[in-house]
Amino acid sequence: MVQTEKDALTDHISITIVGLGLMGGSLALALRDHTEDPDAASLDAASLNVARIVGVSRNPETLAAARAAGAIDAGTTDLAQGVSRADIVILATPVRTILRQLPEVGRHARHGTVVVDLGSTKAAICSAMAGLPEGIQPVGGHPMCGKEVGGFAASDSALYRGKTFGLCPLPRTRPEALERAWALAEAIGARPVVLDPVTHDHAVAAISHLPYAAAVALVNAVRAGSGAGAGTAATDLIWRLAASGFRDTSRLAASEVEMMLDILLTNRAAVLDWLGLYQEHLANLKAALMLGDEAELRDLLAAAQARRAGMTF
Amino acid sequence: MVQTEKDALTDHISITIVGLGLMGGSLALALRDHTEDPDAASLDAASLNVARIVGVSRNPETLAAARAAGAIDAGTTDLAQGVSRADIVILATPVRTILRQLPEVGRHARHGTVVVDLGSTKAAICSAMAGLPEGIQPVGGHPMCGKEVGGFAASDSALYRGKTFGLCPLPRTRPEALERAWALAEAIGARPVVLDPVTHDHAVAAISHLPYAAAVALVNAVRAGSGAGAGTAATDLIWRLAASGFRDTSRLAASEVEMMLDILLTNRAAVLDWLGLYQEHLANLKAALMLGDEAELRDLLAAAQARRAGMTF
Repeated sequence: MVQTEKDALTDHISITIVGLGLMGGSLALALRDHTEDPDAASLDAASLNVARIVGVSRNPETLAAARAAGAIDAGTTDLAQGVSRADIVILATPVRTILRQLPEVGRHARHGTVVVDLGSTKAAICSAMAGLPEGIQPVGGHPMCGKEVGGFAASDSALYRGKTFGLCPLPRTRPEALERAWALAEAIGARPVVLDPVTHDHAVAAISHLPYAAAVALVNAVRAGSGAGAGTAATDLIWRLAASGFRDTSRLAASEVEMMLDILLTNRAAVLDWLGLYQEHLANLKAALMLGDEAELRDLLAAAQARRAGMTF
Repeated sequence: MVQTEKDALTDHISITIVGLGLMGGSLALALRDHTEDPDAASLDAASLNVARIVGVSRNPETLAAARAAGAIDAGTTDLAQGVSRADIVILATPVRTILRQLPEVGRHARHGTVVVDLGSTKAAICSAMAGLPEGIQPVGGHPMCGKEVGGFAASDSALYRGKTFGLCPLPRTRPEALERAWALAEAIGARPVVLDPVTHDHAVAAISHLPYAAAVALVNAVRAGSGAGAGTAATDLIWRLAASGFRDTSRLAASEVEMMLDILLTNRAAVLDWLGLYQEHLANLKAALMLGDEAELRDLLAAAQARRAGMTF
């Protein structure tokens, strides 16, 4: 079967989602909701008319669960087969897995296929996307949402609703492909925003990867300082007293390790920059407290309070 | 009117709450709920039989709001007058205000009055409580709850429900007084736990004050690194992309500045110890990332993940 790009934009299309963890599973469920929603069907031609969703996973049990949940129409453990007939391929695996999968997707996807990823860092992925065969249309993607639990079982069709969805077209990306990625983001209820990969990676290092690092160091420090956890009275007390403040500040530390490892390692320079700046501000705070410099300490707390209290989410 | 301690334990009692912000206001509302709950009335003699709640606030408008909400029966701006007839005085002001108020409470409270505070640090307060006149019965208190918004308007009768309520009796505190503080904690739905002030302060520095400091430095670093906020495109983008991860990690930075200033300054040694340990763990993380030491980085992330994912709140 050969389709022209024009046909693909108006016809019922086939979407292949590679990786059915939290992000891929939730995307499948959200697309399913979109397809079944009578309001969505009345949208204009730019919207997605999804005929078929194919899932690709290493794990046959995940495929079975996704089929049972009605998230996908068909599943395969074979990446090449899974992407070969798709109009849109969505890569929803960890960042370094995406980097490994891109060449194979390039070899097996047909001419005109739009390839979008959901990876949390964009410079390395967009760079790899530049090496895809000419007929493939790449768009880097990053929906700004998640949970600290992963896996298909944690999937939620509302995960993307109202969330910002960063899109990074390459210089070679055709406008129709970007339009399709935009429609995909809107179909799952997200708010697309176009930006370049470097700007993206610098920004998410500040508001996502640095908070993660801060949470990891927090948990590890309290763990170390409370005797590493082995049932002493003082240790038990510390964890018993932990309330909503610790819960929220440390929440990101429970994120999936392999996913976060990929993110940190593919955004190393930006994360290191922000970590350095964070260390400076932590040292300022510590110095003011150590000196008992009440005026300086008040200024530091007040600056953060004013900024944070003014934020809405 | 003179009451013996025995009378006070069985009779309907009068409670004075000093400070009607989030903590004091919520306490008043919770006691009101307790009094009006028919199940509570059938509890044994150890429970609180609250006849009257008096509020003390600098601000007449706060007193009027608290009366209008039914939180208090009477209000006064005069601390001496407010505490003079109370069976229990609850100090719900910031820590250093409590330290200033204690001597005046000691001068004006009558013999047998139980004085409990809700301050977030305990060593300095329990030390000051040791100087109260002999007839006064002091119990340091710290309910492990809060919100990042303050003031009577934020009060919530459910604030204490299910939360740990630390109690620090002094060597001089009589068992009946501790029993009364325990009943107070239970009356508002909290779970009392007795501990010594130094252990308390060390523990809360880890799980409350350190997370606060981490959140403040996070907001200040991102603020500084994004150009301090003045409407540039890159700056706007950073804040626009901020999602639930940043929201939660930075939440504590919105806490009331004067309250937190008092907490940090009255728990300086413990907070500095934990900050130092935190800096070490942050440096470890940064070093592993800088070196691209994947195995070490994975170990650090996995240790935090295992600890944090195992926590329930």
